[in-house]
Amino acid sequence: MSRLKLNITMSLDGYVAGPDQSTQHPLGIGGEQLHDWLVPLRAFRESHGEEGGEVNASTPFAEDILGGAGATIMGRNMFGGGPGPWGNDSWKGWWGDDPPFHHPVFVLTHHPREPLQMKGGTTFHFVTDGIESAFDQARAAAGGKGVSLGGGASVAQQYLAAGLLDEIVLAVVPIFLGGGARLFDNLGDAAPKLEQVEAVGAPGVTHIRYARAG
Amino acid sequence: MSRLKLNITMSLDGYVAGPDQSTQHPLGIGGEQLHDWLVPLRAFRESHGEEGGEVNASTPFAEDILGGAGATIMGRNMFGGGPGPWGNDSWKGWWGDDPPFHHPVFVLTHHPREPLQMKGGTTFHFVTDGIESAFDQARAAAGGKGVSLGGGASVAQQYLAAGLLDEIVLAVVPIFLGGGARLFDNLGDAAPKLEQVEAVGAPGVTHIRYARAG
Repeated sequence: MSRLKLNITMSLDGYVAGPDQSTQHPLGIGGEQLHDWLVPLRAFRESHGEEGGEVNASTPFAEDILGGAGATIMGRNMFGGGPGPWGNDSWKGWWGDDPPFHHPVFVLTHHPREPLQMKGGTTFHFVTDGIESAFDQARAAAGGKGVSLGGGASVAQQYLAAGLLDEIVLAVVPIFLGGGARLFDNLGDAAPKLEQVEAVGAPGVTHIRYARAG
Repeated sequence: MSRLKLNITMSLDGYVAGPDQSTQHPLGIGGEQLHDWLVPLRAFRESHGEEGGEVNASTPFAEDILGGAGATIMGRNMFGGGPGPWGNDSWKGWWGDDPPFHHPVFVLTHHPREPLQMKGGTTFHFVTDGIESAFDQARAAAGGKGVSLGGGASVAQQYLAAGLLDEIVLAVVPIFLGGGARLFDNLGDAAPKLEQVEAVGAPGVTHIRYARAG
């Protein structure tokens, strides 16, 4: 059974995106700093067809993000929603013509839409019947590999609260966003029990791996 | 010049105390779980006159908390405030007759009060003229050792926003408190720039050391 894993970067004040997300600022104001640890890495540059870059203690975590999964689930905001372009079926999201997933991506939405095939093996499938259906479809498509939960915060909270998330690999970076989307909010009594599996310090980031307890 | 350091444990959802703090629950509902990594350690037990206990990767961090500073600054809630007992000068806080500090402790408050000498070298001094005055007095009393910022969240935020905090040693534990006092809140544009110095995984906790950048 494919496991469901969330790889996500969080600011020290708990945000996975800054305020005022838009097509211009997909991660909100200041949110692009979240990935300052990832972008200079050779593993990241190679996945974008570029040469050079750093190798450090973050490399295995970057490789896990970039190549570890057989399918991805994400919310409509992470695909490229926003009310503006979303209603328009010619809108292909903000991942460009050749998105970095290279596998099937299941987008949770209330807006039905035909699958959208991109270059490089990424096809966006739009799922309107809920998080469990999206997980079932992603598992079936993952070809025995794991399923990655891409985010954002609200989708992560729904899977956390439903007890469907097997693993969280959190990258904690020393920035303050001061507003935006807080990852571990709105869990109420549905907060899962986690156990810490591993913690690794790397330049400008701490990677912590948690598994669902019990 | 004595440095000002904050050693504090934070839940994964960003809280350093749970909801509904009271004399019965000084760390709020569920807040005592924050210290599950600390209490079983030999270093902690020895500081409370008990034998036995564990030695693990958290030990140097516990020793730093328990013996590293020459003076401590804390807010009135951490001393034992709450509106109830606070107005009463016979109230000696919730640290017991022999508090674990063994050095001068400067309590930020609006309520003037004579110093309160406890057993074991701890004297509580009540400071009514602000955070800079408390820091000056603590530095003068620290005998060349560092000054520890005890908390809670609101006092930590004031020192952070004022740019007076030299170092943060954060213990991140995989629990969710769902409410209470959030550490990195209310910073607005005064959020400091930090750099990550060190990250250490230990049983049930990740210790991350940050220094003020630049």
